[in-house]
Amino acid sequence: MNYFSSDFKLGILGGGQLGKMLLADTRKFDIQTFVLDPNDEAPSRFGCNNFYKGSLMDFDIVYQFGKLVDLLTIEIENVNLDALDKLEEEGLPIFPSPKTLRLIQNKGKQKDLYVQNDIPTSKHLRFVGLDDLRNSLAKDELEFPFVWKSAQFGYDGNGVKICRSALDLVKLPDVECIAEDLVPFKNELAVIVARSFSGEIKTYPVVEMEFHPEANQVEYVICPARIDEKVTQKAQEVALKVSETFNHVGLLAVEMFHSEDSEGNDIILVNEVAPRPHNSGHYSIEASYTSQFENHLRAILNLPLGNTDSKVAGIMVNLVGEEGFEGQVVYENIKKIMAIDGVTPHIYGKRETRPFRKMGHVTIVNENMNEARRIAEEVKNSIRVVSV
Amino acid sequence: MNYFSSDFKLGILGGGQLGKMLLADTRKFDIQTFVLDPNDEAPSRFGCNNFYKGSLMDFDIVYQFGKLVDLLTIEIENVNLDALDKLEEEGLPIFPSPKTLRLIQNKGKQKDLYVQNDIPTSKHLRFVGLDDLRNSLAKDELEFPFVWKSAQFGYDGNGVKICRSALDLVKLPDVECIAEDLVPFKNELAVIVARSFSGEIKTYPVVEMEFHPEANQVEYVICPARIDEKVTQKAQEVALKVSETFNHVGLLAVEMFHSEDSEGNDIILVNEVAPRPHNSGHYSIEASYTSQFENHLRAILNLPLGNTDSKVAGIMVNLVGEEGFEGQVVYENIKKIMAIDGVTPHIYGKRETRPFRKMGHVTIVNENMNEARRIAEEVKNSIRVVSV
Repeated sequence: MNYFSSDFKLGILGGGQLGKMLLADTRKFDIQTFVLDPNDEAPSRFGCNNFYKGSLMDFDIVYQFGKLVDLLTIEIENVNLDALDKLEEEGLPIFPSPKTLRLIQNKGKQKDLYVQNDIPTSKHLRFVGLDDLRNSLAKDELEFPFVWKSAQFGYDGNGVKICRSALDLVKLPDVECIAEDLVPFKNELAVIVARSFSGEIKTYPVVEMEFHPEANQVEYVICPARIDEKVTQKAQEVALKVSETFNHVGLLAVEMFHSEDSEGNDIILVNEVAPRPHNSGHYSIEASYTSQFENHLRAILNLPLGNTDSKVAGIMVNLVGEEGFEGQVVYENIKKIMAIDGVTPHIYGKRETRPFRKMGHVTIVNENMNEARRIAEEVKNSIRVVSV
Repeated sequence: MNYFSSDFKLGILGGGQLGKMLLADTRKFDIQTFVLDPNDEAPSRFGCNNFYKGSLMDFDIVYQFGKLVDLLTIEIENVNLDALDKLEEEGLPIFPSPKTLRLIQNKGKQKDLYVQNDIPTSKHLRFVGLDDLRNSLAKDELEFPFVWKSAQFGYDGNGVKICRSALDLVKLPDVECIAEDLVPFKNELAVIVARSFSGEIKTYPVVEMEFHPEANQVEYVICPARIDEKVTQKAQEVALKVSETFNHVGLLAVEMFHSEDSEGNDIILVNEVAPRPHNSGHYSIEASYTSQFENHLRAILNLPLGNTDSKVAGIMVNLVGEEGFEGQVVYENIKKIMAIDGVTPHIYGKRETRPFRKMGHVTIVNENMNEARRIAEEVKNSIRVVSV
């Protein structure tokens, strides 16, 4: 198959920032792209060859969009899977496959899969709704504290709540959900695995994540993670096992907790996965030989995977909307941070900011990790996403 | 001025591959772009916010285009300068300025400027046309061999011819031209200087260029150049002096010959300059902390310049159309080269190939220069730009 300056058409479901960064690589390779997104101000509306506005959850829209292209991928998991099933039946290559997406879309099924495949993960219970969960509490099958997660449609900390008492249940939506053990962890780690159609596999280095305590969004992603070689190796092994279980094509970002067992031994527990480019891999644009976006493309197009090693240490700082600001965005002090060596802002192209909205990120690269970490903090303390 | 996700509009005259690569960074920063190009299949027609088809040499078209934007830059020198003069008079910031462009558009004026400013360059004579040049030969003011250059509108080896006898003059066009001494050189070098509106200056490392003997197009660009530290320093100094002379805003790519004087001392002679991103800086996308394209943007927008140092060694191989092939392009063996670590193809997006047409480039990066050089040759010997 000839993809480069050819008639080949790649369809992308979703036009957010992940799609936008993927488009940078389709432009580099001159691969034709069709993008579908419900928002006509979507970040990916520029940089693609054809942009379509429409719901990703609508069977007809997704199906008709799929009929326009030669291969379909996603940049968001929440898409109409029945349409994808039909398109796949009719012969359209779709990566990740609807089967993989179905397993991942539902956190209950995802967790069951880990248990079935001996993949270490925190204990969980599945519930059809809140009454079901309350019954379980009443019967002492479930105990506080636990982590409540909506089984479907959660993202960026939405659909997740730590429940310490019955009070925390009051505002929860009555939807299919899971309850997980609250794991005390030392670190949150992630490994992105690239797997091509032909089965070629490469893993990115283990990264370390620091979350914003309130918004439950990643604040810093640090590559490589500052952890023991033994833990690094274990995390890589677990990520590869998860990748094998899903048998995905494209990227699989595996989020993990680094914790310890009752005897003080290091353990790795899988938290959740995303079958696409992931926030934890944004550093790769500047730090890696091949960015996660390019490797997602390479994988789904069955091209050889690129080198996932890093040229230099990389740290990513998310740019999220400040609390108290809503309206047309201004990136305060962006000039100040751009004056620092190795600092690259990425602005996603959302005109309106609101509290905790992901508006962009900044990558800091440096030969020296300590220096990168120092600069990352300076960046974090300088730039503010506010409104005019 | 707020450029990021704002109403600010950047105009770019020219929509070729340089514009296309510049657009990757305007997308990264979410800066609105307007592009003008005569070809409605121009590589930059995607990735900009608004694409206009029209002649870059037409006063009215360039003037009207300029009225749409808040700041104007170019990715090709051959544009209507009268329109730019008028726009500048009316207050539009234009970088590089029409004054700089006027000096550079005419190779005779450019050479005169070097002489006036004590910038080392090969000896030259200016002629209004071929008869004028023939007279000079008859009077022995000019002697074979010499390098004939069209004063205007040359690019990529067009408009340049080495003349060794009267026979070589037969097919030359009767246009304003210069004749330069044919300089025996050890190396062709280039230095890209970024200079922002506020006067901040940074230089990229000295690169070494190898040309295709027939097409007179660059085959390899090697960064850093494998030359003595003393020569490196001299080349940097000369490039800075040229930059100072033009007083440009944005990038200035300074092409130089590394030669020796009659006593065997190393000398640097300026060949010519380009006031924009340049083929000799393409390696910077993968190898540098800040690519030449990002620094061009930073410079013209008066943002702080980014670090011009390299993370790793970089080599660029041009992809030009093979002789004997014309029609819809195919990149033979592209999968093979993508399997090599550190190899990134850039496909410019021209559907039709023809002999020696610039269709793309490949960047090879590696921690080890010798290894990069070995791989570059492998790439060069593998990939072929042919037609279906």
